[in-house]
Amino acid sequence: MNLLPCARRCLSLTALVLVFALRAQAQQPAKPYVSSLSEVLTIHSKILNEERKVYVHRPKADSASANQRVAVLYVLDADNHFELLSQYADYLSRPDVGAMPRLLVVGIPNTPTSRTRDLTPTSSNTNYEGKADTSAYKGSGGNPAFLRFIQTELIPAIDQTYPTRPYRIFAGHSFGGLAVINCLLTQPDLFEAYIAVSPSLWWDKRYLVTRANQALKSGATLPKRLFLSDGNEGGSDSFFHKDLLSLDSLLAKKQLKQLDYRYRHYPTETHMTEPLVAYFDALRFLFEGWEKNR
Amino acid sequence: MNLLPCARRCLSLTALVLVFALRAQAQQPAKPYVSSLSEVLTIHSKILNEERKVYVHRPKADSASANQRVAVLYVLDADNHFELLSQYADYLSRPDVGAMPRLLVVGIPNTPTSRTRDLTPTSSNTNYEGKADTSAYKGSGGNPAFLRFIQTELIPAIDQTYPTRPYRIFAGHSFGGLAVINCLLTQPDLFEAYIAVSPSLWWDKRYLVTRANQALKSGATLPKRLFLSDGNEGGSDSFFHKDLLSLDSLLAKKQLKQLDYRYRHYPTETHMTEPLVAYFDALRFLFEGWEKNR
Repeated sequence: MNLLPCARRCLSLTALVLVFALRAQAQQPAKPYVSSLSEVLTIHSKILNEERKVYVHRPKADSASANQRVAVLYVLDADNHFELLSQYADYLSRPDVGAMPRLLVVGIPNTPTSRTRDLTPTSSNTNYEGKADTSAYKGSGGNPAFLRFIQTELIPAIDQTYPTRPYRIFAGHSFGGLAVINCLLTQPDLFEAYIAVSPSLWWDKRYLVTRANQALKSGATLPKRLFLSDGNEGGSDSFFHKDLLSLDSLLAKKQLKQLDYRYRHYPTETHMTEPLVAYFDALRFLFEGWEKNR
Repeated sequence: MNLLPCARRCLSLTALVLVFALRAQAQQPAKPYVSSLSEVLTIHSKILNEERKVYVHRPKADSASANQRVAVLYVLDADNHFELLSQYADYLSRPDVGAMPRLLVVGIPNTPTSRTRDLTPTSSNTNYEGKADTSAYKGSGGNPAFLRFIQTELIPAIDQTYPTRPYRIFAGHSFGGLAVINCLLTQPDLFEAYIAVSPSLWWDKRYLVTRANQALKSGATLPKRLFLSDGNEGGSDSFFHKDLLSLDSLLAKKQLKQLDYRYRHYPTETHMTEPLVAYFDALRFLFEGWEKNR
């Protein structure tokens, strides 16, 4: 009858000794993990009349690449996607991976109140269901000014601070994708490549689809690369997906010379999970054949 | 005749003023970008008779999740994949993404000399072309000891330092994938889920394929999740791909009960680019339906 309590005491003692022994294994206190060459710049924008932070990730360099000028990837909604794209760029450009050149990654985060203002091309209070929503979209339509900030304040500041070369990529998701398409249609010379992941083409009664149809002349020359994608937003019958299909057909129909573009649909990814795989595929597409040609 | 030099001087002056104005925009010096909740632990391993560093990424917590215990993802070759998997886990578990639960990510880097020793299941000096290579694979065959280190030293140290729950995932690529499959065959209880990205099944005359055939009894119960993948290593006729197909058929043929597994082949990805998309797909597979069921 006494065996069980004794066994229990012995087991408890063994457990105590074991815990003590295990505690002794992690001999040193944890140290910070210093991961990357990223920093935060603060720029005073006269155009936006506010201070803007941007995140900058410098590519890892060895003695052979230390003085090489690098292309720059600008990514919107940086608090969501800056670290991920920095990871992708670092890893895919490693000498033993060799899938793309080294890039500088510049992340543009939103301010607490600026996202809708900066990323939408027109002033509108119509939500994606076509209903009036005066509170959510107040102050919309500031994307032209935001693109001027990028063109005349941000890009020059980056180019004078880091060893860049004049090849720029513009990447955005959702409203960020909308801003990317708006830039391609209104200021195509600003970037050499465009990545629009699930752009909110529904904005303002499909304003950008209409604008694309007007702005892109059939057979015109547009020497750019464009990656376009969507997830399973609302399913295959949704207007979200149909808007992407419309833009895809429109681009195909216009037969633009030197436009190298790809549209990918991710039926198993949601609006929020899709960017992870779409940004990877976008970089793979933009630098397709780079390894063979370098 | 003087007009041109004058214009040049004026332009130079304008350029100078412009450069000065632009320099003034980045008003503050760059500050460090503090990215994440990662730290480095040092553990003295009696089994391996050496100090081992491990990287630990704690999930972001809000007031609702601060005291929740979390599952743990252990990833090999941490200098290649720890930051990426930390990014994926952080992003996919965000409340507004909701694709998986919050995870603790533990990265196990190699020491300068330990990779082949720790990750290969047997002592062999045969390279992937079937030729003897005594220098590259010297000291191979230490994976059983390395798994004992993980089981009896690393996992207990992690479990006593962080608020973990007993659901563990083991992830590895290449030789790391080999170690993951070896663990599944020899110590399946150590982890609940296994991710083997392009495992080097060619090792030692396909030792693990033979072992899998012996170890896995037809119709046996194996309540695990397994994600298995390969890229375009050597093309579709390569022995690398055929070895993966062999393991895939073997798993199908054995009809193991409660083994939920997926094999994915990435014909457009190389051995080195594949892990980025495969690890994403692996996490999506492991937590398929999680959003609906939570």
